[in-house]
Amino acid sequence: MTNETLKVLEERFSCGAFTDELPEKEKMEAIARAAIQSPSGTNAQPWRVVVVTDKELIREMEEETIRMMAQIPAYKEFYDLVTSTGMKLFYNAPCMIVLPYDTKNPYAKFDCGIVSQSIAVAAQSLGVASHIIAINEVAFMGEKAADLKAKLHFPENYEFGLAVLLGNAAAEKAPHRPDAEKIIFVE
Amino acid sequence: MTNETLKVLEERFSCGAFTDELPEKEKMEAIARAAIQSPSGTNAQPWRVVVVTDKELIREMEEETIRMMAQIPAYKEFYDLVTSTGMKLFYNAPCMIVLPYDTKNPYAKFDCGIVSQSIAVAAQSLGVASHIIAINEVAFMGEKAADLKAKLHFPENYEFGLAVLLGNAAAEKAPHRPDAEKIIFVE
Repeated sequence: MTNETLKVLEERFSCGAFTDELPEKEKMEAIARAAIQSPSGTNAQPWRVVVVTDKELIREMEEETIRMMAQIPAYKEFYDLVTSTGMKLFYNAPCMIVLPYDTKNPYAKFDCGIVSQSIAVAAQSLGVASHIIAINEVAFMGEKAADLKAKLHFPENYEFGLAVLLGNAAAEKAPHRPDAEKIIFVE
Repeated sequence: MTNETLKVLEERFSCGAFTDELPEKEKMEAIARAAIQSPSGTNAQPWRVVVVTDKELIREMEEETIRMMAQIPAYKEFYDLVTSTGMKLFYNAPCMIVLPYDTKNPYAKFDCGIVSQSIAVAAQSLGVASHIIAINEVAFMGEKAADLKAKLHFPENYEFGLAVLLGNAAAEKAPHRPDAEKIIFVE
């Protein structure tokens, strides 16, 4: 049993290398529209959909994320990997949709996850590659936090939740292998 | 700009009334498969996809949710509404997919939200109505918690995250009106 949408869900993968080129504006708008169609607890929509294509701002977030990673023991190993290999933390993505969430809403992290998948699915359906990330949360834990929040138009009481990198894939990658053991039927 | 999947995302709605009839098993399996294809932080998949069609167990969760709601001040108003109107808390849904999450994984709530939207989108594409809910978390806060967790096969350190009600819609409902103000472009 399959259809177009099931195929999109099946073929979506977390892109590890983007080209420099920004997908068409029309596609980015369609993806953002899909994001705000997402369900949320009591329809509170406790999130914002901040579509960043400002290369300088993306670079600034990347630098601050790496700088902060160095200071947090849990990220030390990843920091060493990034700095020793010169790997691009955001995989060279030309667009990042930042999803801040309302910290006063107890369900907002779930709701934020829902939006990120709407974005990934809409993108995949349009041939746009995606990668949902959380690592840049650390950029919002240091002295640059207030500045970044202002540049990204976070409302009061909102914190960084997730981000979705978008762009054209520079390299194909297979989706992860689903683990059927995670499904349990109680009949 | 549109396509089959964007239409599915646009037309998905939170169903408020289900018929008694269970959708075909094939469809339920396709939906569960879409769930486990979901992305998660570092591909940890910190969730389970528990597909419950046991009517007795669904009824038991409903009763315990209502019983617990009476004891939690924040739910008092909703409790009064449910008990005074006789409204069906789970909208008569013949199937509930419970999504417990790994409390040791700091990103698990986001990941759980992602899975719930994979389920809602896959369901909508198959003509199956859905409703993502969190209210039954309270059933896992009282004396029945251990019993329910055992019946639902929660692994150790897992807690209730979200659930998705599935079935055939007894009544049409329009999707919520998207709020374009939630989108911000930073170019």
